[in-house]
Amino acid sequence: MATINDNYLKLKAGYLFPEIARRVNAFADANPDANVIRLGIGDVTEPLPAACRAAMIQAVEDMGDRATFKGYGPEQGYAWLREAIATHDFQARGCDISADEIFVSDGSKCDCGNILDIFGSDNAIAVTDPVYPVYVDTNVMAGHTGDANEQGEYGGLVYLPITAENNFTAPLPTQKVDLIYLCFPNNPTGATASREHLQAWVDYARAHGSIIFFDAAYEAFITDPSIPHSIFEIAGARECAIEFRSFSKNAGFTGTRCALTVVPKTLTGKAADGSDVELWKLWNRRQSTKFNGVSYIVQRGAEAVYSAAGQAQTRALVDFYMENARIIREQLTAAGLQVYGGTNAPYVWVKTPHGLSSWDFFDKLLHTCNVVGTPGSGFGAAGEGYFRISAFNSRANVEAAMTRIISTFRA
Amino acid sequence: MATINDNYLKLKAGYLFPEIARRVNAFADANPDANVIRLGIGDVTEPLPAACRAAMIQAVEDMGDRATFKGYGPEQGYAWLREAIATHDFQARGCDISADEIFVSDGSKCDCGNILDIFGSDNAIAVTDPVYPVYVDTNVMAGHTGDANEQGEYGGLVYLPITAENNFTAPLPTQKVDLIYLCFPNNPTGATASREHLQAWVDYARAHGSIIFFDAAYEAFITDPSIPHSIFEIAGARECAIEFRSFSKNAGFTGTRCALTVVPKTLTGKAADGSDVELWKLWNRRQSTKFNGVSYIVQRGAEAVYSAAGQAQTRALVDFYMENARIIREQLTAAGLQVYGGTNAPYVWVKTPHGLSSWDFFDKLLHTCNVVGTPGSGFGAAGEGYFRISAFNSRANVEAAMTRIISTFRA
Repeated sequence: MATINDNYLKLKAGYLFPEIARRVNAFADANPDANVIRLGIGDVTEPLPAACRAAMIQAVEDMGDRATFKGYGPEQGYAWLREAIATHDFQARGCDISADEIFVSDGSKCDCGNILDIFGSDNAIAVTDPVYPVYVDTNVMAGHTGDANEQGEYGGLVYLPITAENNFTAPLPTQKVDLIYLCFPNNPTGATASREHLQAWVDYARAHGSIIFFDAAYEAFITDPSIPHSIFEIAGARECAIEFRSFSKNAGFTGTRCALTVVPKTLTGKAADGSDVELWKLWNRRQSTKFNGVSYIVQRGAEAVYSAAGQAQTRALVDFYMENARIIREQLTAAGLQVYGGTNAPYVWVKTPHGLSSWDFFDKLLHTCNVVGTPGSGFGAAGEGYFRISAFNSRANVEAAMTRIISTFRA
Repeated sequence: MATINDNYLKLKAGYLFPEIARRVNAFADANPDANVIRLGIGDVTEPLPAACRAAMIQAVEDMGDRATFKGYGPEQGYAWLREAIATHDFQARGCDISADEIFVSDGSKCDCGNILDIFGSDNAIAVTDPVYPVYVDTNVMAGHTGDANEQGEYGGLVYLPITAENNFTAPLPTQKVDLIYLCFPNNPTGATASREHLQAWVDYARAHGSIIFFDAAYEAFITDPSIPHSIFEIAGARECAIEFRSFSKNAGFTGTRCALTVVPKTLTGKAADGSDVELWKLWNRRQSTKFNGVSYIVQRGAEAVYSAAGQAQTRALVDFYMENARIIREQLTAAGLQVYGGTNAPYVWVKTPHGLSSWDFFDKLLHTCNVVGTPGSGFGAAGEGYFRISAFNSRANVEAAMTRIISTFRA
């Protein structure tokens, strides 16, 4: 009799975004004339850069000629893409990262979950609260936790609250932890981490033999030149950090699918016999065995992000969304709401007014303003009383949404 | 101190294909003028069908307009692709499979490995020998096995030998097994399974509450109308089988990346408390949490496989490779070699001559004929003394390779 992975039964009913979709669909069905504006899920809305499109059309044409046809590519990604990433995203910022330490993938969501494959089941794991739900759910699925309590906190995980009280900066844990998920610029709070803060984390990790999973999916949105874009700008990070990046948000690839993970060859983990094992080798084996590389066509599109035209076009995309973020911040403040984030990140983190719960505020915004956001409590217990507004939408939609919110809340 | 997944240390040194690549590269470096013909890895060589290319170019153009731009798609795949698959690949053959039982993915290799995520760690697992190495290696990584012995057999797995002696038909196990990997048309032997043979497996699985993982990646190469293309052509399979399919081999998508997995909603597995849990729900949760869907552009290319033009073009591609297979069978036979497969599959399975080991024959073929094949022993202990020749190459290369082999072996 085939048995199931019982850990899945510990997962709470809905992954956050499906639950939002369910409520929005129910509302839209009941109110077919309502013009619902979605500032909930962090999905881009603007066209793919022209440079990426031109490169992908050329790549499709390559596939039509036997001489330029591409079958299986390297599971780790084509060398030309890995080189472009290493040069532009890392070496240009002084990070000592080489092309063969970069693994191209079809998504950071996949990599964030899959990375657990190469680690032991006995590691103590720390996540911030609120947190991107995938970090937690994949640990639940892997059997690294106990059951969830009323607040949705899973036994066995170390939660590090990030709230207005600590300026949304993840506090170093007081106990020893082995694997640490950090996301800066932060999803969902829009907060950033200073060089000093990241240095403290790297020092902690090196002192304890811990590994930091650094999610830099939103690094392109950093406007303050003092804020690091990569954990590898921090001394010692090559000994303790894995970084996840994506083309989803800077180049609009959420539907095109390309991302990357950086695993320095200097990283090690402990085997049961006490020996040190290179994590690069394990991840390379994992990717070679359970993955078959990203579509050649998509990799050519990603490579074009690094062309002169691609750089200008992705910069314009980011600037566009950041102007949306500025408008959201300004208008919500004018509406009397307390807001955070949104200056180095495409997310604005809002304190719900009048002590409303996150989901009550969600329902109120949906039913009164026909605007969709994301309840902070969906990201963790410490997100209760907060709400995420995404800057990913057209200017017209952002402005219309803000006008509706102001007319409701400034009263 | 972060610990690693020690199960990775049980894996033997090289995954088969990287080891082949290493030997071929070493030979090519030492013999830069040699014209090496690769009939080793099962990678397609001919251009992508024009219908798929046209659809992908249109899809890239869709991405350039805000009104038709696609961000995150459904993790399970777009409904239009799932409908096309259900209609053409399953319902047209009388299989009772609905669109929402189809999960579109970026590769069967990934799905074959990832499927283990939703099962318990206490299942007894059966694989054929020889076997596609990914089935075994992913079980090793997941901790479902002991160490490997001298022949590369892992403790804890049930191996079902498929050899000339049993006509390359997987024998039903004498002990009870819970998860069973079957691949027909078979990689690597090129053998097929009759309706009666598959019915016996389904009956076994239903009697024991087992789940069959049916890999149908090569179904398009079946020429004999009596041979089932899908496990779901067999009565009772909806109660015991998951099927993996791919666009890699029929439509030349090895570098474009699209596949699918069928999980009937009628399948269940046992939870620790003895209750029956729907596997569809678990896989849906797994894919929603650890995967983010296939590129919109690629899905449009896959959809075009089902257009009238796409059907004609993929049929022509398959016919082309099958004519290669016919030539290989005929010429190797003329060279005095004993061959199997190659009539309903793109692989010809060769008995090595003069009692040569599989790797010795590999080296001889590489060094003498400059032809690359795949050592049968790389697929398992029972593959020792066999060798796989792939029909995936140009006609000219296949003919040149056969001429070289004949001149070497007919002597």
